[in-house]
Amino acid sequence: MTHASPYEGRHLIAELHGCSGLTDLGLIERALADAAAVAGASLLEVKLHAFGPGQGITGVALLAESHISIHTWPEHAYAAVDIFLCGQQHDLEAALAVIIVALDAEEIEQQTLTRGFAATVIVQPKVAIR
Amino acid sequence: MTHASPYEGRHLIAELHGCSGLTDLGLIERALADAAAVAGASLLEVKLHAFGPGQGITGVALLAESHISIHTWPEHAYAAVDIFLCGQQHDLEAALAVIIVALDAEEIEQQTLTRGFAATVIVQPKVAIR
Repeated sequence: MTHASPYEGRHLIAELHGCSGLTDLGLIERALADAAAVAGASLLEVKLHAFGPGQGITGVALLAESHISIHTWPEHAYAAVDIFLCGQQHDLEAALAVIIVALDAEEIEQQTLTRGFAATVIVQPKVAIR
Repeated sequence: MTHASPYEGRHLIAELHGCSGLTDLGLIERALADAAAVAGASLLEVKLHAFGPGQGITGVALLAESHISIHTWPEHAYAAVDIFLCGQQHDLEAALAVIIVALDAEEIEQQTLTRGFAATVIVQPKVAIR
């Protein structure tokens, strides 16, 4: 069974290496908010958690159009970033560029997936867990 | 330039079709918390946003090991689910099964990506946005 495509979701998945600022809660909060803004997305809330002095930060910008998430490993100068937005008018690459600049990332690995009804749906039996 | 692999991140991306309960904040909050628990992950906080009566819910379970996110489109009986966990001991499939059962999903499309240092890093010049 396949579906028509009533909405276009895109999900940019990025690994950022050689980063700085990965323990800076304020910097990351601003980066997520700025990324949402430059993408043309509507920010609902930024929710961050710091694991302690010198340790990583995990968090998400909840958007009306899905989310931007970040998880940082300062000990590896690495951040995992997801930018998931519905709507073709949104600029995911611009949002990623804001985060790259904020973290001064030296190396970027990225891919963009299609989300939603656009891809073929694999029919599977329902899963029982008990 | 490539990196060694100091941690193994896996990111399960799922499209759930034919779902019910997609406007039920309590059901989705419990599903995310239960999914985190069955995966063996440490829940920091569940943060949800409901767009209004009969409309979708967007939200995330922030975990010590990354996140589980959900975005629902009740008008299409569709939910986009991400389960991103670092650590090979975590059971992403079990977490997804909990959400599938909670939403009574009829059709599931899923893929699992490797995150972190495991994949080859593409060296790119720094991006300037101004």
